[in-house]
Amino acid sequence: MGASLGLALQARGLTEEVIGCARKPATLETALRIGAVHQVTYDPRQAVSEADLVVLATPVGSILTILEQISPYLPVNTMVTDVGSVKVPIVRGAEQILSDWIGFIGGHPMCGSEESGPEAARVDLYEGAVWAITPSSRTPQWALERLIHLIQALGAHPLIVSPEEHDQAVAIVSHLPHITSSALAVCVAQLAQTIPASFQLAAGGLRDTTRIAAGDEILWHDICMANREALLEAIETLQTHLSTFKEALRSGDSITLLKLLKRGKESRQQFFP
Amino acid sequence: MGASLGLALQARGLTEEVIGCARKPATLETALRIGAVHQVTYDPRQAVSEADLVVLATPVGSILTILEQISPYLPVNTMVTDVGSVKVPIVRGAEQILSDWIGFIGGHPMCGSEESGPEAARVDLYEGAVWAITPSSRTPQWALERLIHLIQALGAHPLIVSPEEHDQAVAIVSHLPHITSSALAVCVAQLAQTIPASFQLAAGGLRDTTRIAAGDEILWHDICMANREALLEAIETLQTHLSTFKEALRSGDSITLLKLLKRGKESRQQFFP
Repeated sequence: MGASLGLALQARGLTEEVIGCARKPATLETALRIGAVHQVTYDPRQAVSEADLVVLATPVGSILTILEQISPYLPVNTMVTDVGSVKVPIVRGAEQILSDWIGFIGGHPMCGSEESGPEAARVDLYEGAVWAITPSSRTPQWALERLIHLIQALGAHPLIVSPEEHDQAVAIVSHLPHITSSALAVCVAQLAQTIPASFQLAAGGLRDTTRIAAGDEILWHDICMANREALLEAIETLQTHLSTFKEALRSGDSITLLKLLKRGKESRQQFFP
Repeated sequence: MGASLGLALQARGLTEEVIGCARKPATLETALRIGAVHQVTYDPRQAVSEADLVVLATPVGSILTILEQISPYLPVNTMVTDVGSVKVPIVRGAEQILSDWIGFIGGHPMCGSEESGPEAARVDLYEGAVWAITPSSRTPQWALERLIHLIQALGAHPLIVSPEEHDQAVAIVSHLPHITSSALAVCVAQLAQTIPASFQLAAGGLRDTTRIAAGDEILWHDICMANREALLEAIETLQTHLSTFKEALRSGDSITLLKLLKRGKESRQQFFP
């Protein structure tokens, strides 16, 4: 996410200098090599000390720790945002940590893939994507305007939503599909061990339903833990629906099974017409 | 599936004449218009009366009914196959229905999409696809050789597997993902009703995990019912795995959740390296 942003900011003439900060040498080397950043550092404090815009693109679990580190070094009126997939704990934490003269707004661009790291960077990653931003009552107007302008300048579509509604929504449309995909991959691989043809007969259906299971486990661990209340409820609702399908099958109830499959088709069309 | 086969047989010079048979006028009209078939009929008996090769590409639940209708009209040494997603009931039924001088082998090309009908036909649908064929002890050698030759001539890869192993394998790698995708779509749409932002925040993860839920419900009803024993077992195993993920989340057990997500990633890599 970070390297793609570095590329896009430059390609659209929105920056003079991008400073990349990461812990692993390989990440910084790749970011430099592909031209996503101009300078690199391991020290977050140094990275932000002259910044106009700071974007935190680390796993959700490290965002507040980094905010605490950089807080004393942020210039007045710096715009700070993040691209984490969960917003309530980050927005609450950031407002405790940061001074009033810093413009913080939580953000979450709805793009990316199962790949991670700067090798997977794409200059057009954000083009056409919905970019959720979650201002609070404490957000200064200048910061909101600047972030909206930046997102639009990157070719993305800002969507203002409260941190609470954001987290409930992504528990359903993103975190639940992730856990489902991951559990399905584990289940299928386990069952396939005794049926050799499974590996040869796996096709597009399994490929697509398990694509996101290939995502980075640390990233997804942090996301799921940070949004666990809403996610637990969603998993339970899914289990109930699976049981409804199972009972229709078990009892050979064709009418109910047909209705359920039709409802599945129509439900999908509500999201992707 | 049928119209794509008509196009591919012609494109590769493997046929002189393709006769299309269906119940709906619109299906036959489209098949003719896109050039998938040369002639059309509503009468399966008439369609097969001078055929060298008969391919049944209807929902699984209608294949045996049609075999019974056409059986008395099949010329001696006709090759008959189907493209149904479940093989045990079809192979057993076909061997009871058909005379010994008909070469029947069940088949299942591992391709296709959530779309159906001749509008979705693609001349290259079978290229590079694995095409499972399920001969039995009663299959004549000439029929097996002819079907292998045909599949290879279409650019696909024949995979010989017993009807029993085929059905167990697809319960896991195809039918379970379908039920999961469908139940997930129903669940997400239901939960989203009270959270408006859900519809705007839905992105690639939900799109891919629910793609196959858009499949034709009659087709999938027939498949799931015909393979219900193996499918029920697979759904139960998935529910157990979902509960394992849920418990790790509920108890805040980071080590277990990380392990599970990593196992999901590795499991997926076993199928799609």
